[in-house]
Amino acid sequence: MTPLEIAGSMNMLGYGLATLGPAIGVGWIFASVINGTARQPEARGAMMSTAFIGFAVVEALAIIGIALAFVLQ
Amino acid sequence: MTPLEIAGSMNMLGYGLATLGPAIGVGWIFASVINGTARQPEARGAMMSTAFIGFAVVEALAIIGIALAFVLQ
Amino acid sequence: MTPLEIAGSMNMLGYGLATLGPAIGVGWIFASVINGTARQPEARGAMMSTAFIGFAVVEALAIIGIALAFVLQ
Repeated sequence: MTPLEIAGSMNMLGYGLATLGPAIGVGWIFASVINGTARQPEARGAMMSTAFIGFAVVEALAIIGIALAFVLQ
Repeated sequence: MTPLEIAGSMNMLGYGLATLGPAIGVGWIFASVINGTARQPEARGAMMSTAFIGFAVVEALAIIGIALAFVLQ
Repeated sequence: MTPLEIAGSMNMLGYGLATLGPAIGVGWIFASVINGTARQPEARGAMMSTAFIGFAVVEALAIIGIALAFVLQ
């Protein structure tokens, strides 16, 4: 019986899944800043500082996925 | 019994998953700029600078996926 | 018992996944231009130039998927 040989790593599949949520979440955050700027341009500074807090904690999930793809065997 | 022969790599599957979130996220960001331009055309410059920050951090997740598809074995 | 014979490549599956997000993202961007034109027809030029920037960076993710499908083994 010929063994089943599939190239590549399951970790790449996991990284692809790990980017799905953070990319949509961070896109949502910055889209909200843009919508808020269109409604009230003078509040852009306060919105951006909130956006960077949200960006940091959401993007961290994908960055941790990069590290895990190398660590897990 | 014929062996199961599947060509290709799991990494391509992972890259396909890794583009799903960033493409929707970046599309959302630029759609917000377009909607904001329709509402308040004079704020387009401030919205575009916010959009490029968001675009950079979201698109990076897909670009990292290209690199990981070659690195992970 | 019939043996399991499946032809084809995993890379085709990955390309199919890689088109899912960009197609939704680019469709969203141009749909926003249409909605914005309906609201404010004189801003169509500024909206179209924003749409082409967004289209280029989102569609690129799917085009890169075509190249990766040939490169990855």
